[in-house]
Formats: sequence, C-alpha cells, structure tokens
Amino acid sequence: MTQELEIKLRGVLETCLYVDDLDAAEAFYSKLPGLKLVAREEGRHIFYRCSRNMLLLFNPVHTANEQTDIDGNPIPLHGTSGAGHIAFSVDGENIDVWKELLVNNGIQIESEVTWPNEAVSLYFRDPAGNSLEIVSPSLWNGNV
Amino acid sequence: MTQELEIKLRGVLETCLYVDDLDAAEAFYSKLPGLKLVAREEGRHIFYRCSRNMLLLFNPVHTANEQTDIDGNPIPLHGTSGAGHIAFSVDGENIDVWKELLVNNGIQIESEVTWPNEAVSLYFRDPAGNSLEIVSPSLWNGNV
Repeated sequence: MTQELEIKLRGVLETCLYVDDLDAAEAFYSKLPGLKLVAREEGRHIFYRCSRNMLLLFNPVHTANEQTDIDGNPIPLHGTSGAGHIAFSVDGENIDVWKELLVNNGIQIESEVTWPNEAVSLYFRDPAGNSLEIVSPSLWNGNV
Repeated sequence: MTQELEIKLRGVLETCLYVDDLDAAEAFYSKLPGLKLVAREEGRHIFYRCSRNMLLLFNPVHTANEQTDIDGNPIPLHGTSGAGHIAFSVDGENIDVWKELLVNNGIQIESEVTWPNEAVSLYFRDPAGNSLEIVSPSLWNGNV
C-alpha cells in the first residue's frame, strides 16, 4: 500500500532556529538575499521563506513554555538553548561573491572549509550564536 | 552586481536536530519512509537525505565541545539542548494514511491541527523529545 500511494516524506518543509532577540535577528537575516519575511509575531517569532523551504525563528522563552492552540488542538511546545546549525544552499561558483557580501555587511566569516569533493563552505554566526553555513548542494552529491 | 549574478540563498540544504542517543534515533527515524541514511559516525552523528534536503542528527556532547577540522580549517562548534522542531513535507491527501502508519509503528500522535487554510498537521516526538510535524506544503501557500 505504501508504494501505491507513495507515502514518503517529500522534504524538510520547516527548519527552526531559536533566538533570544528577534529584532536583532531580523536586522541580521534581512541582509541575506533569498530570504523573504512572511510573518512576524512580536516577541514570539519571525518566519522566512527561502525558495521551497521555511526558516522559522522562535524566541524559546515563549514556544517552550506558553501553550497555544488552534481550535482547541495544542501546538506542541518546543524550544532549545545553545547554538543550532543550518546550511543554506547557494550556487557554488558564487562563493567568492558571497564572501564579499558577508564582509561588506559586517558579518564575520568564522571559517572556510573546502571539502574532499571540492565544495566550499563559509561559516558565520547569527546574533544569537547559531552557526550558519552557505555551500553548494554539490556537497551532498549535487542532487539535493 | 548582485542581481546579475543572482546571488541568493537557494533553500535550506541542511537542517539539524540534536539527540542524546543516536541508536534510538536511528531506530526511530528508520520508520519514516522518505529518509535515506547516507552517513553515520558512531557516537557523533547520523545523516539522512530527504529529497532535496539533508537532515543531520548530532550528539551535542560531541559537536558542541570537540573541535574538528578539515585540512586545518575548523568546523564551528554547535549543539543545543531542549526540544527542537522541524516539519516534513507530505502529500496532504495522505494524512490519514500517515496517521495509520505512525500509530502502526508505535509512534504516538501528540496533536493534530487543522489550519485556517485547511492544511492538516500531525505532531509527534522523536526519542530525544524533538517535536516533529508532517504537513502539506499547502500550509505555506502551496509553493514551498
């Protein structure tokens, strides 16, 4: 039955990071081309669209402690502390332009890594300390 | 210059969750069709491909404390505690089949939410307590 109906996860739709200061986060993420702000709830969250994916930034003080519901059905509590990590997909041939863009926006590049398959990762931090990476999808065999 | 070279983030390539027990995580995530195990480092991480996206499960005891590098360039430290959250994209018409699949695999559905635009979310937890959701991409206007 599973195969007939093609019951499978089609991708990661929502990725979350947790930040203590949503204003600082918005000022920072607005510098990254390709992110489109689609929702904001003061003090609780900022949501961005990034192509097919959603990047959700939450203040864990709210989401880990304050129960919300939709028509009486709870949205389960969640929220982390410490540095999360995500990687954004970029065109690999533009890594040098990205480096310039980040530096010109006052974003410090924490590390640059060239992987065995020649993909290059740039690592930097958001104001909450989350570790962000930009890299070509060729890092994962080019098909992701 | 930015527009000419189309300098933009193309999507979220890597999404991370943190787990304390990688064996328990692997046993759990192997029940979810659409996730393909692509790498495992004992005690440190398990990596899954999910269509265009990568889901990386890390033991934060390692990644938040033990510096690793590639040719002398550091992979920045990261790692969280507490319940993270991600949503997987599924075909919305199959939500009832997913509910059956989860229950048949001993996975408790924590909540079911019908959103104002009629998308339905099923929420459940991984063994580390991370909040997982499956939902149609129509939740975010159908284009993600």
